[in-house]
Amino acid sequence: MFKAIVRAERLQSTLDSVGVLVDECKIHLDEGGIEIRAVDPANVGMVDLSLDADAFESYEADGGLIGVNLVRLQDIAGMADSDQLVELELDEETRKLHISIDGLEYTLALIDPESIREEPDLPDLDLSSTIVIEGRDIDRAVTAADMVSDHIELGVDEADGVFYVKAEGDTDDVHLELDGDDLIDLVAGEASSLFSLDYLQDMNKAIPKDAEVTMELGEEFPVKLHFDIAEGEGAVTYMLAPRIQSN
Amino acid sequence: MFKAIVRAERLQSTLDSVGVLVDECKIHLDEGGIEIRAVDPANVGMVDLSLDADAFESYEADGGLIGVNLVRLQDIAGMADSDQLVELELDEETRKLHISIDGLEYTLALIDPESIREEPDLPDLDLSSTIVIEGRDIDRAVTAADMVSDHIELGVDEADGVFYVKAEGDTDDVHLELDGDDLIDLVAGEASSLFSLDYLQDMNKAIPKDAEVTMELGEEFPVKLHFDIAEGEGAVTYMLAPRIQSN
Amino acid sequence: MFKAIVRAERLQSTLDSVGVLVDECKIHLDEGGIEIRAVDPANVGMVDLSLDADAFESYEADGGLIGVNLVRLQDIAGMADSDQLVELELDEETRKLHISIDGLEYTLALIDPESIREEPDLPDLDLSSTIVIEGRDIDRAVTAADMVSDHIELGVDEADGVFYVKAEGDTDDVHLELDGDDLIDLVAGEASSLFSLDYLQDMNKAIPKDAEVTMELGEEFPVKLHFDIAEGEGAVTYMLAPRIQSN
Repeated sequence: MFKAIVRAERLQSTLDSVGVLVDECKIHLDEGGIEIRAVDPANVGMVDLSLDADAFESYEADGGLIGVNLVRLQDIAGMADSDQLVELELDEETRKLHISIDGLEYTLALIDPESIREEPDLPDLDLSSTIVIEGRDIDRAVTAADMVSDHIELGVDEADGVFYVKAEGDTDDVHLELDGDDLIDLVAGEASSLFSLDYLQDMNKAIPKDAEVTMELGEEFPVKLHFDIAEGEGAVTYMLAPRIQSN
Repeated sequence: MFKAIVRAERLQSTLDSVGVLVDECKIHLDEGGIEIRAVDPANVGMVDLSLDADAFESYEADGGLIGVNLVRLQDIAGMADSDQLVELELDEETRKLHISIDGLEYTLALIDPESIREEPDLPDLDLSSTIVIEGRDIDRAVTAADMVSDHIELGVDEADGVFYVKAEGDTDDVHLELDGDDLIDLVAGEASSLFSLDYLQDMNKAIPKDAEVTMELGEEFPVKLHFDIAEGEGAVTYMLAPRIQSN
Repeated sequence: MFKAIVRAERLQSTLDSVGVLVDECKIHLDEGGIEIRAVDPANVGMVDLSLDADAFESYEADGGLIGVNLVRLQDIAGMADSDQLVELELDEETRKLHISIDGLEYTLALIDPESIREEPDLPDLDLSSTIVIEGRDIDRAVTAADMVSDHIELGVDEADGVFYVKAEGDTDDVHLELDGDDLIDLVAGEASSLFSLDYLQDMNKAIPKDAEVTMELGEEFPVKLHFDIAEGEGAVTYMLAPRIQSN
């Protein structure tokens, strides 16, 4: 069984965090909250999201698993004002999700979870550098890099103690360096990896500008981006595989 | 003769109410105010609009009839700020309408009224139910229904004393029930009719969110939507023909 | 050498003033400030822009000439908030312009000035009328004229002491008359010229609504539009060639 009430704003940001990577996903309805793990069709970007029962106005669940059309669910949640309450209730027999917003009832047919791409395991990586950075700085770097290239290098210069972003186009370059004073925190180890800008832009869309984002980086390794949602009662981790360095 | 001054906002909402259904219309320039009746090319949606002489800052007319290109007239009115005054004067000889906004003069060629689709008579129907509802609730229902279907059922359950909206899609459904407490007023009789969502969406665009809309409904009968404009010095009635119920 | 710091807003409006006419331009980096002159590919619209050294937070230059991709430079400047400072520094060896916004560094490859269309000389014309008018009145006239025609007549009636704008369409006309009271200033001589609306619309986009624009007009002569930027520490002059009067 699953029955919950949540502020529209929280539901919307939860769905958006996953929706930037996939159109359908499985949702685990655990006793302690919901969890979503998904990987994009090309196996390049992954997301692991949890939203605790405390993030809801009320929450009851006993461990089910549902498959949903995220695009449709985002549209429905988007009809509510951010402060409105959204009621969710699973009808186990018909496999439909009843969504109710101030008297308006929406019945959403669920998708067989078996038919949805398998959930990824986000590997535990031992990455050399940890950068804690504001969402708005990621946004600036990604926006600028997009003007010159379709990939972006993220790295840390251990000796200088700086985190850097580089994008090299055919004629123009973009470069950003942030040291310990510009960042919320920096644990510097030698690190440098190249990423597809498309994916990073999608993830960037879901990162609030005022979020504290913990970024873990290595040498030609995936990057992990971690930030809290729902005032700390939920969390999102993105992982993005590197591209092979072009020389 | 026709000579009038009106606040831009009032002219704009008047024209928009008719413009959602037709591109050209006839305007009756009566002593007591203007009146417009029009029906869309498919004969499905009708509008009857009146704007009293009192809704104008000044008004003089003696019963003429003009034909106008509504799209063009909406564009012209749209150039004015909502608080600006728009002066209208008919040149009977040249059959042109002079529109003046803060010194800017626009000369609009009129259309021969004979060449415009005949005006409809909105029939007097004896409909079983009367629902008085806020414009914003119509907006919610229409927006949600559009997510699942291209038609919408409006009805009243006499026994339960509720007005309901239903839309059924291939997989998902939308349902809204409003009882006497949720509505401004309800005179309940058995009623249920199916309508094309396209038309209702167009009419919805012209209904202010805070308007009190009087809706009259019957069993497989047209729906009538009536609301005031210009702080009660004008009124709009829409009538929409039903679709045949699909079973 | 060239090294300067300028508020983003000033750089943006400077680039926009030229960008409405051309995609590439030469920039003179003189001791006293920068100067740009450009003519559109059809040789119909010209711009002469100067921005004094005092308009910059800091400025050092010794007379160089660079060629830039304006579209690209506008994009870069557009990333900054209007109050942010933009640092510009020319690397003479690599012929690249370094643009730095709050730590973000953009390296822009310059264009060989020889490859850019030759700079025009804005001729000194002896025009009969001078009209000083608010930017917002130009905007109203141009917007209204565009509804009926693709050209616009600007003129002065010396006897009546009025500046007028006329646009004649196939069926509708637009007319605006402004006398000495409606204008900031008027030196009336007989004047009347016809212009392409496209160009005037482009120029209009770059004219602030609250700018005092000095317009010089003659009989079938080009029009000159002059206004200050950067609180008087810069200036823009547009010149637009007339069309042959159609009779």
